[in-house]
Amino acid sequence: MNEITVHAPATVANLVCGFDVLGLCLSEPYDIMRLRLLDKRQVIINTTDNFPLPKDPALNTAGAPLLEMLAVLKQDVGFEVTITKQIKPGSGIGSSAASAAGAVVAANELLGNRFSNEELVRFAMFGEKVASGVKHADNIAPCIYGGVTLIRSIFPLDIIPISSPPLFVSVLHPQIEVRTSDAREILRKEVLLKDAIRQWGNIGGLVAGLMKGDYDLIGRSLEDVIIEPVRSILIPGFDIIKSECKSAGAIGGGISGSGPSIFMLSRDEQTAQTVAGVMKSIYDRIGVNYHIYVTTLNHQGVVVKQNA
Amino acid sequence: MNEITVHAPATVANLVCGFDVLGLCLSEPYDIMRLRLLDKRQVIINTTDNFPLPKDPALNTAGAPLLEMLAVLKQDVGFEVTITKQIKPGSGIGSSAASAAGAVVAANELLGNRFSNEELVRFAMFGEKVASGVKHADNIAPCIYGGVTLIRSIFPLDIIPISSPPLFVSVLHPQIEVRTSDAREILRKEVLLKDAIRQWGNIGGLVAGLMKGDYDLIGRSLEDVIIEPVRSILIPGFDIIKSECKSAGAIGGGISGSGPSIFMLSRDEQTAQTVAGVMKSIYDRIGVNYHIYVTTLNHQGVVVKQNA
Repeated sequence: MNEITVHAPATVANLVCGFDVLGLCLSEPYDIMRLRLLDKRQVIINTTDNFPLPKDPALNTAGAPLLEMLAVLKQDVGFEVTITKQIKPGSGIGSSAASAAGAVVAANELLGNRFSNEELVRFAMFGEKVASGVKHADNIAPCIYGGVTLIRSIFPLDIIPISSPPLFVSVLHPQIEVRTSDAREILRKEVLLKDAIRQWGNIGGLVAGLMKGDYDLIGRSLEDVIIEPVRSILIPGFDIIKSECKSAGAIGGGISGSGPSIFMLSRDEQTAQTVAGVMKSIYDRIGVNYHIYVTTLNHQGVVVKQNA
Repeated sequence: MNEITVHAPATVANLVCGFDVLGLCLSEPYDIMRLRLLDKRQVIINTTDNFPLPKDPALNTAGAPLLEMLAVLKQDVGFEVTITKQIKPGSGIGSSAASAAGAVVAANELLGNRFSNEELVRFAMFGEKVASGVKHADNIAPCIYGGVTLIRSIFPLDIIPISSPPLFVSVLHPQIEVRTSDAREILRKEVLLKDAIRQWGNIGGLVAGLMKGDYDLIGRSLEDVIIEPVRSILIPGFDIIKSECKSAGAIGGGISGSGPSIFMLSRDEQTAQTVAGVMKSIYDRIGVNYHIYVTTLNHQGVVVKQNA
């Protein structure tokens, strides 16, 4: 095998109370990535979309992880990567993570799967560093492992897959820009101990609710008293969307990543479609352009679609 | 049935990273409580031990919850309570919670189990209020439910039982006084966001580790970067005990409640005995008196021993 095509899906990081530690993988949207094995130590980046992303592999979120992978390989190999991005950069649903994760999963397949998922996460984190200046894994890990993942610790890296009942996800992506660096800067460096305690009760409840398949507990635990009250002011209509989506049957939800996307979880597809309708009608009223996705929790992560 | 005897066990609250939210129930030590049903609306407190606890039911940790229970009952009943305390007050292993929980569980049995466990926790919390001025449930809940419990929220009360693999517990109770109010006052009201994030990664990891039965994950997650560094200075030898117990095979552990007791978890009884030996030799060297218990995680909570 010397060519492979993978679908690298979007992800939701900062899962409400799980800021910086919990993320989940979506079935859609996804980037389409084609990798060809080369017999030379080089990485070539091609794109078939119109996003103005760097072609220099050292500066590209797919390229940087592959250069790290090559650095630990003793053989003369390289990769030609062709990216068809369908996850818009800056959307808050893990666009950079998808490219990074897709690249390393595809490369690993071409190399006969010599690296573990955890090693792939380590490589892919170099893509996040290129994209945002910070090596974080809360999008990368669910993108590679699928499902819901807990990053218990980043140094040393400790990724815990969390089992989950079926979940349907409605995502609203307002066509406005919220820079990750801005979203991070408006956060306070200190938080009240009493708020932190409330947050860790919710984290424990969310992990337990997911593992028990207890939708009510998941819903009660999807509460963020620290990050969301600050960041939601950057997203038009956030509060009304959240409350009306819950009235329409959503379990709960919040800001995806550092925004501007908003996600809501539901137990079944019909509710997720109704919730998407609520999002649509509110944003039509507000008058900001948007994309809406109705999708499912993706238990597979990056998937191989074709190889030759 | 108009008389009943129950064993009301000790509990470990503030389970390392789970400050104010996670607790577990021990098999030993326990208070022995005998309750007799009266046909008059009154609560009588007798004791067979020498602890200087108030006999006025409104001021007694077993009495106050029973008065609350009577207040919601429409019938002419009351309780005569005889307490043989074996859990020393101020030990940090839930002495007040045991009396409160034992009283309401025993009374509920005498009344034909008309109240739910959650209602019993609500009554018993009035005992904690009498004891410490604060209505908290992180000892009461594991004492009534057994096993490990998460208090996701206190207002409104939301108790989540967390399943767990077998755990053996070594408890060192130094014979020094650490007042709950002092232990609370030395805590900072604000914490660094980065520490809070690390703590919630650990809470998620601990809940997942318990539910998966993954001892290594439990061990890695038993880390507290916020409370323990402050409170452990009140407990002689804390750091050396923790590190030597872990070297001797303990999974992990920390301060029980607000101290001064220290607990360590192990996978098997032999390790728990070895760990207790380490505690003993260190405290013999330090020269502070102590009690040591080697016990197990108690999945039953308060148990009925005898009724007539």
